[in-house]
Amino acid sequence: MKPLWFERNRICSLFGIGFPVIQAGMVWVSGWKLCAAVSKAGALGLIGAGSMKADLLREHIQKARAALADQAPFGVNIPLQRKDAAELVTVCVEERVRIVFTSAGNPALFTGKLKEAGVTVTHVVPTATLARKAEERGVDAVVCEGTEAGGHDGVDEIPTFVLIPQVRDAISLPFIAAGGIADGRGMAAAFALGAEGVQIGTRFAATVESSAADRYKQAVIEAGEADTVLSLKSIGPVRMIRNPFAQRCVEAEKRGAPADELRALRGEKRERQGIFEGDWEEGQLEAGMGAGLIREILPAAAVVENLVREYESAVARLVASPKQ
Amino acid sequence: MKPLWFERNRICSLFGIGFPVIQAGMVWVSGWKLCAAVSKAGALGLIGAGSMKADLLREHIQKARAALADQAPFGVNIPLQRKDAAELVTVCVEERVRIVFTSAGNPALFTGKLKEAGVTVTHVVPTATLARKAEERGVDAVVCEGTEAGGHDGVDEIPTFVLIPQVRDAISLPFIAAGGIADGRGMAAAFALGAEGVQIGTRFAATVESSAADRYKQAVIEAGEADTVLSLKSIGPVRMIRNPFAQRCVEAEKRGAPADELRALRGEKRERQGIFEGDWEEGQLEAGMGAGLIREILPAAAVVENLVREYESAVARLVASPKQ
Repeated sequence: MKPLWFERNRICSLFGIGFPVIQAGMVWVSGWKLCAAVSKAGALGLIGAGSMKADLLREHIQKARAALADQAPFGVNIPLQRKDAAELVTVCVEERVRIVFTSAGNPALFTGKLKEAGVTVTHVVPTATLARKAEERGVDAVVCEGTEAGGHDGVDEIPTFVLIPQVRDAISLPFIAAGGIADGRGMAAAFALGAEGVQIGTRFAATVESSAADRYKQAVIEAGEADTVLSLKSIGPVRMIRNPFAQRCVEAEKRGAPADELRALRGEKRERQGIFEGDWEEGQLEAGMGAGLIREILPAAAVVENLVREYESAVARLVASPKQ
Repeated sequence: MKPLWFERNRICSLFGIGFPVIQAGMVWVSGWKLCAAVSKAGALGLIGAGSMKADLLREHIQKARAALADQAPFGVNIPLQRKDAAELVTVCVEERVRIVFTSAGNPALFTGKLKEAGVTVTHVVPTATLARKAEERGVDAVVCEGTEAGGHDGVDEIPTFVLIPQVRDAISLPFIAAGGIADGRGMAAAFALGAEGVQIGTRFAATVESSAADRYKQAVIEAGEADTVLSLKSIGPVRMIRNPFAQRCVEAEKRGAPADELRALRGEKRERQGIFEGDWEEGQLEAGMGAGLIREILPAAAVVENLVREYESAVARLVASPKQ
């Protein structure tokens, strides 16, 4: 391991990390434990505030900081569609969090307030068009997330492979690719397409330190190439593992079920039921298409090490190919 | 240009070409002119038999051979869902075509007959599972096509970024990635993910030598990141540019229109109307998501040159990054 391998990389410089790898903020998955384990390994861990109220977020921030003994940076992801997003932002400012990722909303809302407090702000978008808008709003970096990503996705369904080069051509900010990246081959491909960092969700959801239920982690391990679906499109597209609940969503959608019916079908707290409680049949098992590439539950540090090692061999293979 | 740059690449060896780039067989686009121009440039041109009856295919094969003066290989793509697929296969055998790509069907059907006649057979599939089946059927190589690809797509909607590494892990045959690859960054990314060649459609559809209508080529140039749709899913998914016809398909699908209604809506010869006749409003303008990356109509040889040059700089950028 060479901790400063990426020393001139803009994502590494921006966050003060050794490897340009971000562990995505994920509901019911990325509390202080996963976040601290990833940051300790030289990448950037994020606390996923999406499944936390303000007080719980404060607790996780304090625990992450204590676990890292202020020796490594970490961040918080705040989904802006949360009704209490302003409160979560306030907690981050009060707790002197240095890195915040905002997602699922308008970057105009809190970027100013966060930047005034000295926070580095990264915004998550699903298209090159929205990447350009985020750049105009003054964020410090952008995550562009392809339709392969687990959980809430953009409505345009643009996959990572075509998204990254279009974002690269659209903005000059440092940018991080996400969606379908689960190993170092994917990381090398993302860099070849023009990204400077990768944000990885599902691979980190199936780690020892993830707060997800064992049954959820097992479902990720078992998923094959075609075992996630993007459904509930008219009420906010979600990518999840194809379990009985997901199958009912797909069928309702196919017969043109109206939004109200889909809302009733989804009900409440399905993510918690699926990811945290491990209800394989009736939970919403949010996961990305990278699940097809994930075959074992690993410690978070091993995931980071593998990513860097696989990245290096993918690049070495590219370089060697003409001379073989 | 270094024509033997990829000399030890398995796709180059298999086909006897200088660059591991295949121009996809495309209805109403890739006749002998485009095919010969691509093969002359050191890549592999394919005649798309999907829009040709047997006699017309024979004529195109003879013209391609004459244009190339037997100095470069070329091939034919046969979509196996064609009712007269057997006849098209016979024409290829009679005309001593050395390279055939079969798609949209079962590789068990004609692989034996073609291989007995000394033909190199490549089969096109949309999943790693079907790649494994094609390998078992004795084909020489596989094209794996992500859901970004234009025209007829697989039902599982697996994007290129997650498809390639899963195919690489599933088979040992030489394999070619397709779907969303429109420049050399995409080519480098495909190689980083494990592919040994790339098949490119839409970028070649918008060339001088393509038989498509100028209005169709213009539509490709104008398309942005979100301007194709995958629709008609229940009667065979097609990716096309979002014009008024495509929009009607999307809306019918959203309200759960049954297969018969979609068939009636599509009618007959929509591809010809869109691609060959250039009817922007009512034609089926088949195109891949790579369209968002295509900004000018170029000669086919320039497309090949750009691909190789951009590939080389993408790899050089990957190698340089840790040392910058």
